[in-house]
Amino acid sequence: MAKQKKQPRPKAVTPKGFRDYFGTEVEERKEMLEAIARVYHRYGFEALESSAVETVEALGKFLPDVDRPNEGVFAWQEDDDGDWLALRYDLTAPLARVYAQFRNDLPTPYRRYAMGPVWRNEKPGPGRFRQFYQCDADTVGAPSVAADAEICGMLAEALETVGIPRGDYIVRANNRKVLNGVMEVAGVLDPTDPEKFAHERGIVLRAIDKLDRLGTDGVRALLGEGRQDESGDFTKGAGLSDEQAEIVMAFMDARREDGPATVARLNELVTGSAMGIEGVGELETIAELMDAQGYGPERFIIDPSVVRGLGYYTGPVFEAELTFEILDEKGRPRQFGSVAGGGRYDDLVKRFTGQSVPATGISIGVDRLLAALRAKGRIGSEAHGPVVVTVMDRDRMADYQAIATELRRAGIRAEVYLGNPKNFGNQLKYADKRNSPVAIIEGADEKARGVVQVKDLILGAKIAETATLEEWKDQPAQFECPRDGLVEAVRKILTAE
Amino acid sequence: MAKQKKQPRPKAVTPKGFRDYFGTEVEERKEMLEAIARVYHRYGFEALESSAVETVEALGKFLPDVDRPNEGVFAWQEDDDGDWLALRYDLTAPLARVYAQFRNDLPTPYRRYAMGPVWRNEKPGPGRFRQFYQCDADTVGAPSVAADAEICGMLAEALETVGIPRGDYIVRANNRKVLNGVMEVAGVLDPTDPEKFAHERGIVLRAIDKLDRLGTDGVRALLGEGRQDESGDFTKGAGLSDEQAEIVMAFMDARREDGPATVARLNELVTGSAMGIEGVGELETIAELMDAQGYGPERFIIDPSVVRGLGYYTGPVFEAELTFEILDEKGRPRQFGSVAGGGRYDDLVKRFTGQSVPATGISIGVDRLLAALRAKGRIGSEAHGPVVVTVMDRDRMADYQAIATELRRAGIRAEVYLGNPKNFGNQLKYADKRNSPVAIIEGADEKARGVVQVKDLILGAKIAETATLEEWKDQPAQFECPRDGLVEAVRKILTAE
Repeated sequence: MAKQKKQPRPKAVTPKGFRDYFGTEVEERKEMLEAIARVYHRYGFEALESSAVETVEALGKFLPDVDRPNEGVFAWQEDDDGDWLALRYDLTAPLARVYAQFRNDLPTPYRRYAMGPVWRNEKPGPGRFRQFYQCDADTVGAPSVAADAEICGMLAEALETVGIPRGDYIVRANNRKVLNGVMEVAGVLDPTDPEKFAHERGIVLRAIDKLDRLGTDGVRALLGEGRQDESGDFTKGAGLSDEQAEIVMAFMDARREDGPATVARLNELVTGSAMGIEGVGELETIAELMDAQGYGPERFIIDPSVVRGLGYYTGPVFEAELTFEILDEKGRPRQFGSVAGGGRYDDLVKRFTGQSVPATGISIGVDRLLAALRAKGRIGSEAHGPVVVTVMDRDRMADYQAIATELRRAGIRAEVYLGNPKNFGNQLKYADKRNSPVAIIEGADEKARGVVQVKDLILGAKIAETATLEEWKDQPAQFECPRDGLVEAVRKILTAE
Repeated sequence: MAKQKKQPRPKAVTPKGFRDYFGTEVEERKEMLEAIARVYHRYGFEALESSAVETVEALGKFLPDVDRPNEGVFAWQEDDDGDWLALRYDLTAPLARVYAQFRNDLPTPYRRYAMGPVWRNEKPGPGRFRQFYQCDADTVGAPSVAADAEICGMLAEALETVGIPRGDYIVRANNRKVLNGVMEVAGVLDPTDPEKFAHERGIVLRAIDKLDRLGTDGVRALLGEGRQDESGDFTKGAGLSDEQAEIVMAFMDARREDGPATVARLNELVTGSAMGIEGVGELETIAELMDAQGYGPERFIIDPSVVRGLGYYTGPVFEAELTFEILDEKGRPRQFGSVAGGGRYDDLVKRFTGQSVPATGISIGVDRLLAALRAKGRIGSEAHGPVVVTVMDRDRMADYQAIATELRRAGIRAEVYLGNPKNFGNQLKYADKRNSPVAIIEGADEKARGVVQVKDLILGAKIAETATLEEWKDQPAQFECPRDGLVEAVRKILTAE
């Protein structure tokens, strides 16, 4: 009952950084999620839908570029007990919580897929929203790199299933252990004291992750003293010496003409680091398993420049990139870039349980993937709207509803016009706006004669584009049919298309 | 990189009042949402997915039992501009915001359906969660009660589509205008000053809405001085005099043996109130239109005890109730109750635009509906898990992956065991926990001979229940087949079921 009369009117706006999705946008996303879920399911993964809300302590702080508490997430405090709750920022942190909570009842390995929105409390930008969809699959409790290879192969199959053909994407893999080996060689990681230099390594990681955006010089600056951006803002660097920085730069640049050559180069770079050598070996095994599954270098490569920004990865990391160009807002061609990423995170469950639980997984950014397919014109064609039954006599709504009901029972999408029927032109304008294929007209005269008028709006639109006045007058796009032949007449128009 | 070593371990718990959904629970809900969406779509409704987050001012305060600001919703303040944001508590308030925002681009009437979680910051209770799914359809910009009748008919069709047969549910309708007419007659509504007695009417509305829970005496107490519950808490009443309260009580009790008799009784009760008489007329028209669509009194009735708790309704309100009994936690039979509700809310868009925009719609509580179908045993049978390819030799993962890939390409759900393969018993225990129909075994010997062992776990389980030791030894549930006849052998087991 709370009326708001005395208050100023609320603004009808989507909150900043959020957006609404209409009609086919919603249906196309639903279809894509379904298609990916079917692939995950066929690989033996089970559905999980965890709550959108988590305790802040369960989520942990793994988002990149987050320095102060609760930054990066939408969080609030509970009234009764003061607990902090937050919207999930991905589907991986909730999985770690779920597995830790229900591990005695779940099978091990636990293979689960999940899809749904996640939320990031970040500065919104063009094409960058604070709510977006992810579609994940993860294997918890599987220490073997065979699990990582399976995830990479499944990712490739999911992309091909939703309409990204071979050649239009590449799955790239790297290994945090190799990066750590390089850090050890460079003297910014001490295996006997893993906490030492953790802050510096964090800066290095985030710098490499931004290679695309900052270029080699930008990353180099962040490895050293720091970097000033165009706006004049200064970001403090990791403080590495020139020699140290060069080792890291050499790592990023370690990709060679093929897998074996890259592996050889990486082995050179991590000489002396046991962890680094182990990491290179894992990459080699993954590449072999991918090859055995038929995923050769045109679909899968080892690429040392991939690191992924999230703080929780401990082993192999992967990324799927679309390799075709699209035009940006200004009409310039650019690479579309990454649409999926993931990796191994052996310590995420351990946070809760104290026991190490190996895990690996992938997250597909469904909204970016949809944007890519739309940019390529592969989805987004507008479907026809419903058949519109017009209202000639507002006292005979029951008759019009009966027509719509008959069409629906025959599987034809249909509705009665429910706006103010006084102006017939408005009814046809409505049918046009809904992209309706057919309008049905039953006035008193038609009713008395047991017929209806059927207006073929598809043909009508074609004629309107090309017809002469004479042809137009003949109105061949509108015809009369017996009331009991209506469904057949409409179906004929719909299938003629 | 942020390790949490020095901090206490976070607790792995779903936040209070939230829950996680696993496997078939997720899939069953998805199927139900799909089925309802197909009905809505066939009726000409378009999909809309608005953001989960709204500004608090856009949401407004329409939740029942909400006295202080922001109660009932999960809300937080933005860092930069201090705006308050909140999670949506239903799908109707966001629709009003979307329509007001995009009304120049949307068709009128705008028919949209939406589905997704909504959040309520309420005290959780048994079976009462703070996140749950709704599946809505609304028509905005349609003043005619034909729109209300269409919604009621579509609701009935949606329920029957998801497995609630005729006879197991009833759609009940009432009209806020009739209630307001009764209030006018009772002297708690002055048509020349709508704000007067608004507080008292709010209490009356919420009291009637709780008839199920509080019974006649409880409602009567709330109409008068107030009511003390079992815990001793006192709820202040509307302060109506005995005569006034009796008029309201008579309204709640106005249902008669059939529609026309109920209409006649309502007309008696609202004598002298123009608004009340208009409301009764609308109910009559809706009942006629429902009847014409074939929804007779076994599926649709006028019931004056239906009011719906939300504050924004202005005309017809409806509710779908399941009429069968289920057993509660203590094994006692009880009515399942309401699974869907809705009504007309002509002022919700006006809050934003200043112009009246008539609207009506329905919301199906999908989680309650699923609980009802599970309680009746109509859904919830467990499906088989994936075929499990066991690992006999960890150096031959590529071989095992090839077997799984072959099965998947044939459309068979399959996976390689990715846990530690050392203990073969654990692999079979895993297959059992996953409810796998088949396990595949390929040791070095089988590999050399070009065969695999196929373990029929469905048959195996049957034998384990009934077989003698002799029969058990024969292991007829396990057989050998040529490696290249594997897919055929597995398919035979799966289809034999």
